[in-house]
Amino acid sequence: MVANVDVNPDLKKERLKCNFNIEEVTFILDGGKDKTLQRRKIEDIVLNSGVSIDPIPEECLSLKERYDNAVRKSVLFGKLIKNELLEISGLEGFGNSALKRTSDAFFKEVSPFMLHLGMFVPTIIGQCTAEQQSKWLPLALNLKIIGAYAQTELGHGTFIRGLETTATYDPDKEEFVLNSPTLTSSKWWAGGLGNTANHCIVIAQLYTKGQCHGTHPFIVQIRDLETHEPLPGVKVGDIGLRMGFNTADNGFLRFNNYRIPRENMMMKNAKVLKDGTYVKVARHAKLTYGTMVFVRVTMVAEVANNLAKAVTIAVRFSAVRRQSQPKPDEPEPQIIDYLTQQHKLFICISTAHALHITGLWLWRTFETVLSNMKSGNTDSLPELHALSSCLKAVSTSDAAAYIEQCRYACGGHGYMLSSNLPLLYSYVSATRIYEGDYTVLLLQTARFLVKAWEQAENGNPLTPTVSYLAAAVAKQRMTWNDSAEGMICSFEAIAAGKISACNENIRRHMKSGMCFEDAWQLTTVRLVAAAVSHCRAMICRTYWSEIKRLTATSSNSVKIVMEQLASLYLIYWALEMSGDLLRYTNINETDLNRLQQRYEELLALLRNNAVGLVDAFDFRDEILHSTLGAYDGQIYERLMAEAEKSPLNDMPVQSSFQKYIKPLMRGKL
Amino acid sequence: MVANVDVNPDLKKERLKCNFNIEEVTFILDGGKDKTLQRRKIEDIVLNSGVSIDPIPEECLSLKERYDNAVRKSVLFGKLIKNELLEISGLEGFGNSALKRTSDAFFKEVSPFMLHLGMFVPTIIGQCTAEQQSKWLPLALNLKIIGAYAQTELGHGTFIRGLETTATYDPDKEEFVLNSPTLTSSKWWAGGLGNTANHCIVIAQLYTKGQCHGTHPFIVQIRDLETHEPLPGVKVGDIGLRMGFNTADNGFLRFNNYRIPRENMMMKNAKVLKDGTYVKVARHAKLTYGTMVFVRVTMVAEVANNLAKAVTIAVRFSAVRRQSQPKPDEPEPQIIDYLTQQHKLFICISTAHALHITGLWLWRTFETVLSNMKSGNTDSLPELHALSSCLKAVSTSDAAAYIEQCRYACGGHGYMLSSNLPLLYSYVSATRIYEGDYTVLLLQTARFLVKAWEQAENGNPLTPTVSYLAAAVAKQRMTWNDSAEGMICSFEAIAAGKISACNENIRRHMKSGMCFEDAWQLTTVRLVAAAVSHCRAMICRTYWSEIKRLTATSSNSVKIVMEQLASLYLIYWALEMSGDLLRYTNINETDLNRLQQRYEELLALLRNNAVGLVDAFDFRDEILHSTLGAYDGQIYERLMAEAEKSPLNDMPVQSSFQKYIKPLMRGKL
Repeated sequence: MVANVDVNPDLKKERLKCNFNIEEVTFILDGGKDKTLQRRKIEDIVLNSGVSIDPIPEECLSLKERYDNAVRKSVLFGKLIKNELLEISGLEGFGNSALKRTSDAFFKEVSPFMLHLGMFVPTIIGQCTAEQQSKWLPLALNLKIIGAYAQTELGHGTFIRGLETTATYDPDKEEFVLNSPTLTSSKWWAGGLGNTANHCIVIAQLYTKGQCHGTHPFIVQIRDLETHEPLPGVKVGDIGLRMGFNTADNGFLRFNNYRIPRENMMMKNAKVLKDGTYVKVARHAKLTYGTMVFVRVTMVAEVANNLAKAVTIAVRFSAVRRQSQPKPDEPEPQIIDYLTQQHKLFICISTAHALHITGLWLWRTFETVLSNMKSGNTDSLPELHALSSCLKAVSTSDAAAYIEQCRYACGGHGYMLSSNLPLLYSYVSATRIYEGDYTVLLLQTARFLVKAWEQAENGNPLTPTVSYLAAAVAKQRMTWNDSAEGMICSFEAIAAGKISACNENIRRHMKSGMCFEDAWQLTTVRLVAAAVSHCRAMICRTYWSEIKRLTATSSNSVKIVMEQLASLYLIYWALEMSGDLLRYTNINETDLNRLQQRYEELLALLRNNAVGLVDAFDFRDEILHSTLGAYDGQIYERLMAEAEKSPLNDMPVQSSFQKYIKPLMRGKL
Repeated sequence: MVANVDVNPDLKKERLKCNFNIEEVTFILDGGKDKTLQRRKIEDIVLNSGVSIDPIPEECLSLKERYDNAVRKSVLFGKLIKNELLEISGLEGFGNSALKRTSDAFFKEVSPFMLHLGMFVPTIIGQCTAEQQSKWLPLALNLKIIGAYAQTELGHGTFIRGLETTATYDPDKEEFVLNSPTLTSSKWWAGGLGNTANHCIVIAQLYTKGQCHGTHPFIVQIRDLETHEPLPGVKVGDIGLRMGFNTADNGFLRFNNYRIPRENMMMKNAKVLKDGTYVKVARHAKLTYGTMVFVRVTMVAEVANNLAKAVTIAVRFSAVRRQSQPKPDEPEPQIIDYLTQQHKLFICISTAHALHITGLWLWRTFETVLSNMKSGNTDSLPELHALSSCLKAVSTSDAAAYIEQCRYACGGHGYMLSSNLPLLYSYVSATRIYEGDYTVLLLQTARFLVKAWEQAENGNPLTPTVSYLAAAVAKQRMTWNDSAEGMICSFEAIAAGKISACNENIRRHMKSGMCFEDAWQLTTVRLVAAAVSHCRAMICRTYWSEIKRLTATSSNSVKIVMEQLASLYLIYWALEMSGDLLRYTNINETDLNRLQQRYEELLALLRNNAVGLVDAFDFRDEILHSTLGAYDGQIYERLMAEAEKSPLNDMPVQSSFQKYIKPLMRGKL
C-alpha cells in the first residue's frame, strides 16, 4: 500500500469517514488472511524489483514496437515469477489468480505468452495421456517450447463441429497430414500464434480409414526451434489490429500437407492406433468440455476483478473531482455527493462483489465436479455446463457494461487512455465474445432449463440450481415480500414464469405442426431472456447466502456494510425488473415506490464508506495503471505528467508544420 | 455504387429478395433526389480523384506518425474540397453533412482541422461583431490562420461558470492579460490545439475595473505564423492518448501573463470599452448558447449516420456469415436467419432512421428559432434548449449502445479494427460526453419539464413538445391501445406520470422543510428517468409523423417497409418499457403477449428487405472502411488481405526472437 503522504485532501477525508476495517474486507475477498498475505508477497517480489516497465506509454509506439516491447516485458516477468510457475502441477493451480493479477502491472493488455500458460498448458493437462504429459509438460513449463491454442477459424467460431481444418491419418508413415482446404478454414485469433509460438494445439477434423471422427486436438510444431522460421507447409502470421489485445499477438495459421507424428494427437479421450483404427476411450462424452468449462469458470472471477479496478478508479476520481454549484456561494461539491453519481457507481461495487463471490463459489463447484469425475461420476456435469455457460455470458456482459458506466461517470477524463478505463473495457468486452458467444451460451443454458421444466412438470427430481422450478410448477402467482429471501424468490418466480412461457410458446408452434427445432428457433428471443433471468436469480441467491456465510465471524461494521451492498444489489435488480415483477408477482405501486425509496436510502448509507470499499479491493497503483485511480488521488498532477510523456510533446514544433501546414497557409498546394 | 461483380452469392441473393426501390429510400433519407445527387457529386469529386489514402492501416503507426499522416490527409482533403468550402457563408451552411460524410473516407477518426471548421469558424460567426467577422472570417476560411476552441479545463467541464482562466483588462495598454492561475485551470481537450492550431478561441473569466463579469470568448494567437513556435507566455501541447480521436490533436494550453489586444474579445454580446467599462449588449442572455445549441443539433444526425454505418456492416456480414447447424444434414444457416440476430439488428436500422429523421426535424426547428431570434423573438429558445439537450443525450447514448450491439452481433470479427466497428464506437461514445454530459443535459431538460408540469397544473398554455402534459394533469390512467397513435400517447403518459411523480417527491421533501435544491438533488435519479421517457416519446412521435409525411407520395412498397420499420421502433420500445406501461396505463398481460408476437412477426417481415434497407444508406466502401461491410460481401478475403498489410507480417521472424525469445528458451536470462 502506498504511504499516506501527499494524498489529495478530499480523499484523505474520505478515508477518515470509513467506519469499517478495510483489511477485514480484503481478507474476505481474497478468501482468507493467508491468501491476502500470499498475494502481497508475490506482488512484492515482482513489483519491488525496481524494474522500469514502460518508460513511455506503450500505446504511443508503432504496432511493431509494441509487440517487441510486449515480448521484452513477458521475458522480464517470466524471470521474476519463474519459481512460482514451477509449482503449478494441475489444473487447480491455475485457480490462483495472484499471478495473473500481478502480471497486470506488466501488461495493460495481454502478454503474447498468456495463452501458453492459459490454454496450451491446461490443454496438455486435460487432453494428454500420462505418457504424453510427461513429454510435453516439462518442455512447456520450462519454456523450452512456446505454445498457442488454435481452434477458431476465419469462418467458424462457436460452432465447433463446423471447423474445416483436416488431420488425415497416413498409416504408411504413421503420421497425420494437416490441411487447410479453404480460405475459411484458416485458423484465426489464437493468441501468441502470430509471431511468438513455435508449437500450437490445433483442433482439426480427424480422418482415418476414409472416415471422419469429428474434431480432435493435436500438438503441432509450427516453427523451427533454432531459426524460428515457419516450417515448410505452414503459413502463419498476425491477423491485424484489434479493438484491444494488440499485444497478444493473435495469429492466423494455414497448413498445406503438413505432417506430424501420430503420437502428437492428444490421446486422453480418443486414440488412433498405428494401423489407423480409431478408438474412443470409454469416458463420458462431455469430458472433452473440461478445459472449456474450466476457462469459463475462471472468467467469472477475472471479469469481476476488472470491474473492481474500474470502480476503484471511478470512486476515487469522484471523491476528488468537484463540479457545478447547486447552491450559490457554496463550493462545487465532490461529484460523489450527487445521487446520480452514487446511482452509477455503487451498483458497480456491489456487482464486483457479487460476481467475485459467485466466481469463487463456481470455482469450488467446479473442483467438486472435477473430483467426482475422477471417480467416474459425471452426473453433475450438465448442470455445471449450464451454470458456467450463463454465468460466463452474464458476468462478462455485466462487467463490460458497468466498466463503461464507470468510464462515463468520469466524464471526459475517463476517455483518456491514461485513466485505464478504455483498456479495461476493450479487454472485458472481448471476454463477452471469446470462449462462447453471449447469445449462444445463454441458449445452451435455456436448453437445460426447458428440459428441467419438463422434469418438474413430470414430478421428477431437479438439480440444486433449478430446484425452484418445482415450486413454480405447482404454485399460483408469487406473493411479493421485500425481504432478501422474498426478493430472491420473486426473481426465481420471474425466471420460472419466463421458462414456462417459452415452453408454452414452443408447444403452441409444435401443435400447429412445426418441428421442435423450428419452434425453438421462433422462441429464442424469449429463451435468451429466460436464461438471463435464471442467471440473475442464481447470482442473487449465491451472493446473498455466501456473503452471510463469509461474514459470519466478521466484525459488526463489516457485516453491516457487506449486507448493505448485497441489499443494494437485490433492490437495484428488483427495480430494473419492475416490469417482470408486475407480471409474475403481486407487487404493487406502493411496493415499487417503497423499493425506490429504500434504494436511495442505501445509496446515502453507503456514501461515506465508498472509498473504503474500493480501497478494500487492494489494488496497487502499478496494477491499476490509472491517472484517475491512484491511491493518492492526485488526478490532475498525474494527467499532466502523463501528457508530458507523449512523443508529440518532445519538441515545440512537429515536422508536419514545415511539410504540410505552412504550405497550406501560404496557399501553395 | 460498386459494380455488381464478384459479389458474395448470398449477398447477391439477398438483393434479389428486396421488394422495394432502394434509391427511393435513399432520396427520402437525403432529403430529396437533388440532395442525393449533390452528395454523390461531392463524393465523386473527392473519391474518384485516385489519391491513395492509407497504404497501411494508420493504427499500425506510432502516435507521431499517425499525427503526421493525419495532417497530410487533411491537407489533401482540404485541396479537394476547397471550392465547396468557400461557398459556406453562415451557420446554416454547416448543416450540409455531405462534406463531413465524405471526409470520413479520409479520417477513420478525426482530422486535426475538424474543429477549425466545426467550432472556430462557427463561433466567429456567432460571437463576433460584423466588423470582427470581416477581419477573422476570410483569414479562417482561406486557412491563413488555423483555429481551435478552448473552453474545457483540466478541472472544469460541463459547469462553465467554474472555469478559472482569467482575462484581466489593462486600460493603460488596452490589452487583456490572460492567465492560468492553477493547474486545474489548464485548458484541456481542445481538438487541433496540441500541435496544429496557431489561433484559439479561449473562454475566460473577464475582469475589468476590479470586477468579474463571468466567462467570455476571446480570439488568441498562440503560435508564431512563420515558425509555429508557441509565443512567449503560452504553453501548449498534446494531452496524451485517448480512447478514440487520436488523430484529432487534442491539446492543453496555459497562459502566463499573456497579452492580447482589446479587440480580440468577441464582442457581439458584450463589450469592454477602451477605458475598461463593461457593456452588455441588450440581447437575450440565452443567445450566447447559440453555438452550443447548434453543435448539439448537428450531433443528432451525425450519430444517426454513424449508427447507419454500423448496421450496414453488421447486416451485410450477417447475410454472408453462416453458423451452426440447428437441423442435421442441412447447411449452416446465414446468421441473419436467426431470430436473435434479427432482434439485435433490425432495431438498429429503425433507430438509425428514427434519429436521422428526428435530427432533420430538429435542424428545421433550429432554423426557425434562429430566424425568429434574428427578428428579436426568443420565446421558443428555452424549448429548443430543452429539446436539443435531451435529444443530444439520448441520441448519442442510443447510437453508442446500438453500435456496440452491431459489433457484438459480428462476434469475434467485429472486434477486428478492420471491421471499423470499434472505431465507430469509440467515436460515438465520445459524443455522449462532450458538448454536455449525458446526465447533466437530461437534468436540464428535466428542469424544463418540471416547470412545464407546474404550468399545466395552473392551466397555463404549454409549448408544443410538452402539450401532452395538459391532458395528463386532467386525466385518469391512460387507456392502452396498440395503434401507433395509441402507443405514442401511452409513452407520453409514462413521461407525464414520471414527471408528476418527481414533482410529488420534490414537494414531499420541501414540506418536511428542505429547500428546493436539496429536494431536487434527492429526486435526480428519477428526474433523469423522466427526461429520458419524455425524449423517447418525442422521438417516437416525430419519427412516426415525419415518416408519414416523407412517404406521402412514395411507392406503395416503400410506404410499407418504412412503416414496418417505424412500427418496429414503437413496439420495441413498448416492450422495453413494459414495466412503465403496466404502471401508467391499463395494459394487461394479453396485450403484452400480443405485442411480443407482433414484434416477432415484424422481424420476419423485415428479414428479406434488411440488406436493401442498409444498401439504401448508400455508403461507398471508401466511407465505410470495413472488411465486413463492403458492398461485395467478400468478408473473408478482405479480412485476410487486411491482415497481410500488418507490419508484423513484413518478415517471417520478428527481431524479438533473437533478442528475447531464443535466450528465454535456452534458459539464458
